[in-house]
Amino acid sequence: MANFIGHALPGSFFLLFGLWWSVKFPLKHACRKNKKVFYLGSKAGFQRAEIIEGIVKAVFALIGILGEQFVPSGPHLKLYNYKAQEWDHLMNWQHSTMYLFYGLSGVVDILTHATNVVPVAFDRLMMSLAEFVEGYLFYFHVHGRAMLDVHIHILLLTAIFGTALCFFLEVFCRGNIVLELLRTSLFILQGSWFWQIGFVLFPPSGGPEWDQNDHNNMMFITMCYCWHYAFALLLLAVNYTVVTWVVRIKMKGAKPMEMELLKTSGQEQESEDEI
Amino acid sequence: MANFIGHALPGSFFLLFGLWWSVKFPLKHACRKNKKVFYLGSKAGFQRAEIIEGIVKAVFALIGILGEQFVPSGPHLKLYNYKAQEWDHLMNWQHSTMYLFYGLSGVVDILTHATNVVPVAFDRLMMSLAEFVEGYLFYFHVHGRAMLDVHIHILLLTAIFGTALCFFLEVFCRGNIVLELLRTSLFILQGSWFWQIGFVLFPPSGGPEWDQNDHNNMMFITMCYCWHYAFALLLLAVNYTVVTWVVRIKMKGAKPMEMELLKTSGQEQESEDEI
Amino acid sequence: MANFIGHALPGSFFLLFGLWWSVKFPLKHACRKNKKVFYLGSKAGFQRAEIIEGIVKAVFALIGILGEQFVPSGPHLKLYNYKAQEWDHLMNWQHSTMYLFYGLSGVVDILTHATNVVPVAFDRLMMSLAEFVEGYLFYFHVHGRAMLDVHIHILLLTAIFGTALCFFLEVFCRGNIVLELLRTSLFILQGSWFWQIGFVLFPPSGGPEWDQNDHNNMMFITMCYCWHYAFALLLLAVNYTVVTWVVRIKMKGAKPMEMELLKTSGQEQESEDEI
Amino acid sequence: MANFIGHALPGSFFLLFGLWWSVKFPLKHACRKNKKVFYLGSKAGFQRAEIIEGIVKAVFALIGILGEQFVPSGPHLKLYNYKAQEWDHLMNWQHSTMYLFYGLSGVVDILTHATNVVPVAFDRLMMSLAEFVEGYLFYFHVHGRAMLDVHIHILLLTAIFGTALCFFLEVFCRGNIVLELLRTSLFILQGSWFWQIGFVLFPPSGGPEWDQNDHNNMMFITMCYCWHYAFALLLLAVNYTVVTWVVRIKMKGAKPMEMELLKTSGQEQESEDEI
Repeated sequence: MANFIGHALPGSFFLLFGLWWSVKFPLKHACRKNKKVFYLGSKAGFQRAEIIEGIVKAVFALIGILGEQFVPSGPHLKLYNYKAQEWDHLMNWQHSTMYLFYGLSGVVDILTHATNVVPVAFDRLMMSLAEFVEGYLFYFHVHGRAMLDVHIHILLLTAIFGTALCFFLEVFCRGNIVLELLRTSLFILQGSWFWQIGFVLFPPSGGPEWDQNDHNNMMFITMCYCWHYAFALLLLAVNYTVVTWVVRIKMKGAKPMEMELLKTSGQEQESEDEI
Repeated sequence: MANFIGHALPGSFFLLFGLWWSVKFPLKHACRKNKKVFYLGSKAGFQRAEIIEGIVKAVFALIGILGEQFVPSGPHLKLYNYKAQEWDHLMNWQHSTMYLFYGLSGVVDILTHATNVVPVAFDRLMMSLAEFVEGYLFYFHVHGRAMLDVHIHILLLTAIFGTALCFFLEVFCRGNIVLELLRTSLFILQGSWFWQIGFVLFPPSGGPEWDQNDHNNMMFITMCYCWHYAFALLLLAVNYTVVTWVVRIKMKGAKPMEMELLKTSGQEQESEDEI
Repeated sequence: MANFIGHALPGSFFLLFGLWWSVKFPLKHACRKNKKVFYLGSKAGFQRAEIIEGIVKAVFALIGILGEQFVPSGPHLKLYNYKAQEWDHLMNWQHSTMYLFYGLSGVVDILTHATNVVPVAFDRLMMSLAEFVEGYLFYFHVHGRAMLDVHIHILLLTAIFGTALCFFLEVFCRGNIVLELLRTSLFILQGSWFWQIGFVLFPPSGGPEWDQNDHNNMMFITMCYCWHYAFALLLLAVNYTVVTWVVRIKMKGAKPMEMELLKTSGQEQESEDEI
Repeated sequence: MANFIGHALPGSFFLLFGLWWSVKFPLKHACRKNKKVFYLGSKAGFQRAEIIEGIVKAVFALIGILGEQFVPSGPHLKLYNYKAQEWDHLMNWQHSTMYLFYGLSGVVDILTHATNVVPVAFDRLMMSLAEFVEGYLFYFHVHGRAMLDVHIHILLLTAIFGTALCFFLEVFCRGNIVLELLRTSLFILQGSWFWQIGFVLFPPSGGPEWDQNDHNNMMFITMCYCWHYAFALLLLAVNYTVVTWVVRIKMKGAKPMEMELLKTSGQEQESEDEI
């Protein structure tokens, strides 16, 4: 939907997942050597989290598709208007297609982690494809619009294709904390940028309109995009610190000995990395 | 040949191979730990399959070259028209060149798997080159045509270069099930899209013509391309499920003990992947 | 600042780091097998060097930001000019943003090497992001300027994105001497090219102006860029030779036996590399 | 030099190296398991070959530079014409720059293989940089020429950047036979294409001129480029077969037992590759 809600909804989806991952991956990293601290940090806990993630993703995608199709101004599943001899609400159909691939990714997540028939790497591949399809459709989406409108969507493509690349690399380097946090930061960026697009293109009532052909506005928006990313990195850093700190406290309280062990092996691993 | 047959023929070739691979790779993956279930699942069986694939590929390519050259409107191996002082039927020659590289790939397949002089990775490299050459020629092929004609071929390039990249990565990660199924899905996409191009540019008699300069048609076609891919993924998923299920049944029937063993080691491998 | 100082300052920063790395990495490489030659060559010495690097980087970035903001013609932290209804000094704000990401990278360097909570690979990732953001802003920065001005900045992008790629690859191949020296050479190139830009766009008083629309000037500048790189490689080669030679002398003086040992294992490693 | 010789000379250089590599790498591959067949196949033999390659490369580059500078119509080391207030013979200087980087690569080859101070991977890196610089200069070189002239050089870029990529990958996968033969085929392609460019742009006396703005000529040239590559692959295949066959004969004659051993381990390696 080409309105504020149509950008805020997917933005919230990306922000929610980004924030959840900014807790999950530091937790996973901190618990890697010590599975018994608390249930969420155990392997079974993470497996269950992956399944829930898949369900949430699929439900979100379904809501997105239904929303695009059945809002009053939507196509109601009609693709071709025979009277006017033209395609009906192509924008809504394109957005539905984007949601569809996220839905498929959700289903694959569930199958991957709830059964053992699908090789685990397929969850990453499907997310990579979902992101790629989103970027692909956006790329051909903005043809012929106003300068600022095009530019603000092109900037989004960096985050989208960056995320697609990260997920694709994760197919080969699964569990690499750097890639996981990198894509988390790009997800948060994508989410907050969707909100930004909403505010710029559909300013809330009473706010001033943006001049879509002013070159200075374009330069500001580019810079603003980098600030969003700096903010995403900051958020990630704060969550990382808090989670690491909480896990250490928990460990110290429960099992001082294992904590020592963890510290040593952690240092060892880091020396290995350095070599 | 710039007509319906000229698109349906290569389309069928890609679809056929895509469908065969969507059976072969899940079978290979399911049989990896258990070579004696049935002949096709054994290593010798797969080796023979590779040789037959190479022969089929080479024969297809030969048919394609002969078809392009000796249809009534074809060049009949004449490259330069000295009377008119111009190149003769360049389109047919370009298509012949594309088929030529697939033919070379077929020959390399046969040499790789029937003899032991060629390192195995060369079959993947030659397929990568064949796809790259196809994309390369297409890229310079569509210069100066109508907007929709150009766009519908540009979309095809995504599948073609994607496949080329997958094959190139397989040179280094041979036997990676994710890459194998990814390229299978892209092959099916390429095949079904060739049929779509045929239907759009040369509508069967009685059908309406497409307005090649309508922006809405372009937007619909882009989306349609994503639907083709969703369909390819679905097809792959169905074949994967059926094959996996059949192999499990067969195993359970024949050797309940080995089946248990397989299950355990399968889980082990998946844990390894997760680490 | 769009003047000579505004290019010479970052240029000096890049040159300084490039020159320091052209000493550090050959030293690290030469000392890898023999930690006790002298303090700087030990592991603790390199760790301390990384922390100091981070501090210097952060301080440089702070100076850059303050300089861009508080020069007489700067924005003094004002972003929007409400009187004129337009953005205030966008150029200075963009440059500040570039410095900001280098500052973040400096902070991450310190955290990575002074504490053990952050996985080591994050220092490389942040540098990669800082370079990428710099290139990203430059790319959209030069829109609508004179031909030579655009071209001279576009050439810079090769070094910037090349460095970003090197740092990103180092996330996965940390300690690879080839990647380390490659990015060192690109850093020196970037530094010397900033000085070149300063001299071309803001010729020192008395010097002749460059005709910014002469095609020959563009061709010369492209070639000049390659000469800068040849010069950077030469500098690197000289430093590498001197450092390797000094380390060998030191080793021979102190411990002739270990030196022999080093030689042998060095040859072994090279044979391994060859296999 | 913008004439026939100026294209035939580098073309011959690339062809010579390509042909030599099409013998060397199959030989190395065939001798890998059996070092004592004949001197050239031994490790010391290959080391010596690398040094000679480096010397030949450096000498070729020197000839190229001297040729570009001191032909009658050349710049004779003068860069700026103060009388006319313009750059002097920029084309010749650009070509000299290209040769310069090949010269550096030759020097690095010699240092790498004749001494043990330089890590072996640097020979590949320098070749990658030399190719990259060549492509980089060519890319900005053809600005504003006739359509066919631009196109025929753009096609060359595919081979150049492809080779640069292969060499860069070899930094990480040294000794990979697939990459080595791929870059060999691209080198032969580059060599034969330089000759083709010479024939097209400067047809030998008596030959017809090419219409540089005919769209059909462009389409033919693109296809012709693919044929050159097919020819390069064929040449490579023939040399590979002959070399492998000669090595097998020699082995069978000299040491029937080791031959058996080789065969077995060869098959083993191939099974490993397949896994």
